[in-house]
Amino acid sequence: MKNNSLILIQTNFKLITNYLLKNKFNKIVIICDTNSMQFCLPILVSNVNPLLKAEIIEVDASEESKSFETVTSILETLFELKLNKSDLIINLGGGVVADLGGFVASIYKRGVNFINIPTTLLAMVDASVGGKNGINYFNLKNSIGTIVQPNLVFINNSFLKTLPVEHYQNGLAEVYKIALINNKTFWNSLQIGKLTELELIKKAITLKQNIVNKDPFEKGLRKILNFGHTIAHAIEMFYVKNNLFILHGYAVVIGMIVETHIAFQKKLISKDTLNEVVTTLVSKFTIEITLKLNYLDLKPYLIQDKKNKNGIIKMALLNDIGKCKHDITVTEKEISKALLFFEGTN
Amino acid sequence: MKNNSLILIQTNFKLITNYLLKNKFNKIVIICDTNSMQFCLPILVSNVNPLLKAEIIEVDASEESKSFETVTSILETLFELKLNKSDLIINLGGGVVADLGGFVASIYKRGVNFINIPTTLLAMVDASVGGKNGINYFNLKNSIGTIVQPNLVFINNSFLKTLPVEHYQNGLAEVYKIALINNKTFWNSLQIGKLTELELIKKAITLKQNIVNKDPFEKGLRKILNFGHTIAHAIEMFYVKNNLFILHGYAVVIGMIVETHIAFQKKLISKDTLNEVVTTLVSKFTIEITLKLNYLDLKPYLIQDKKNKNGIIKMALLNDIGKCKHDITVTEKEISKALLFFEGTN
Repeated sequence: MKNNSLILIQTNFKLITNYLLKNKFNKIVIICDTNSMQFCLPILVSNVNPLLKAEIIEVDASEESKSFETVTSILETLFELKLNKSDLIINLGGGVVADLGGFVASIYKRGVNFINIPTTLLAMVDASVGGKNGINYFNLKNSIGTIVQPNLVFINNSFLKTLPVEHYQNGLAEVYKIALINNKTFWNSLQIGKLTELELIKKAITLKQNIVNKDPFEKGLRKILNFGHTIAHAIEMFYVKNNLFILHGYAVVIGMIVETHIAFQKKLISKDTLNEVVTTLVSKFTIEITLKLNYLDLKPYLIQDKKNKNGIIKMALLNDIGKCKHDITVTEKEISKALLFFEGTN
Repeated sequence: MKNNSLILIQTNFKLITNYLLKNKFNKIVIICDTNSMQFCLPILVSNVNPLLKAEIIEVDASEESKSFETVTSILETLFELKLNKSDLIINLGGGVVADLGGFVASIYKRGVNFINIPTTLLAMVDASVGGKNGINYFNLKNSIGTIVQPNLVFINNSFLKTLPVEHYQNGLAEVYKIALINNKTFWNSLQIGKLTELELIKKAITLKQNIVNKDPFEKGLRKILNFGHTIAHAIEMFYVKNNLFILHGYAVVIGMIVETHIAFQKKLISKDTLNEVVTTLVSKFTIEITLKLNYLDLKPYLIQDKKNKNGIIKMALLNDIGKCKHDITVTEKEISKALLFFEGTN
């Protein structure tokens, strides 16, 4: 069992071409979403010869695709194509394709070879590392899934040119998160803004990989990656409930602000640190929030969070910039107060 | 990631009681089938105090339960019960419950604690070791699943008293298989028939565990456990197609006879060895076959076998009693000839 994947980062397609030539897969299936099919697949196939004969499966570029219905429909196609365990699936797209395609690959014939080629900044810096996949079920985000590492993650930042601006910010949120929980120097250089795009991606991935390597099955340390996400997931589900949508990154930025305020209430961080975090996030991200957030609306989703035990809400909270503790019990009152604080910053 | 589970074997219930007392799970859900619910659950709960408050989920004691419909229905109940990753699922029953419950436990919230308590000989000596689980899809047996080890396997042979005779033979087939592929001494003692039930179970499990430990994800060696199973799975699917049913163990006995003849055709074993294997199996098992077996009827299932590569049929074949090689390419003609040989023995 691999605990981590090979990650190749480059601006051309030589490494992925060589990998495919060397491994001689008999059949290759590429899973795309509507966007990656239109904007990224032509670039990929025209640059990577061994993919000329690949079969293509297209799914809707929407969180709704992360359902059992889509899973069984993809599985059916794979059986019709008579794909074997030794063949290959390539997930080309953003987080939806990585989550969905990774889950399918992990259960088809008890696991088939797969490669992730992320095409959004969010998928590059987040979904590409760690092997988590999943679909939404019972109104809960990623409530069904596995943790299985792809054979390879191939990152080519030329795909980012095809992205709308808000999707760039969407990924940047996870970059800021990894700096906040793990590396003050990286946080400082993000504030100054002098890193190139490829440097920024490489640094974020390396930091996440170091954490995942130490705890691949999230028994302890890896939980710090959930910083900002307890609140973020609840917000996302609350939006879905109201037939609205919020980009994951924006929900994470809000989650980071709210959870940093909880850390402040718990005296884990000083007022100065709270101010530094909040001021930076508010200035770097254009947060637009259409729903008023209060504890009672978020409660049902917070209670169902995978990290909880015995109905008690637990979070990963900063105890300095670049440092984070996990499994901290949080009260309803602390969450309510922090949500009010967020409403004030907005 | 555990590559193997703790296996506790005893005739009372002290070890499992102590394990549960020590681990203090907040919630426990027991998945049963119709039979284990009636015959085994009362014995278990009355002997194991911490299970008095457990929630029960019942599924049909039938291969048809291994479907996405049952999976989603169990998952829904687990979400309704608000089961957490730190809670526990116990799979109490035969292979169907182990396969289905293990798969559910491996994907619910990306994996929850689970214990297998097998109640049939087949489940004790086979499904209990190795962590393979799965459901049937697209007319293919175990075509969807994962490989995840339970926290614990608890084996208590008093459950076997509740079993009908043919189900005992059903499990015995896997015991003979493990002897044939791995241990000539064990094969000899099985022929003499002087082992106690508990000795026989312990030996079969230990041998299987040794193989699985060396290759948990079936990259090589573990494939020898598939001896007899390429043909057996095809027979089982062919029966289902004809709305008939054959016990797995009987299909495996037929599979072992057919595949041993293929080994003989390939000069991997002598005529004497072929005779010893076939004579022993025919005398120990009451094989009743209602469908005539020929290559063309089995072909569609053989081609879809998970072990194959590039459409070529591969098998694990004996090269002596107690020795087995995997990934051996087999031709259509060899299979046809071996099926004819089997018809002659029957």
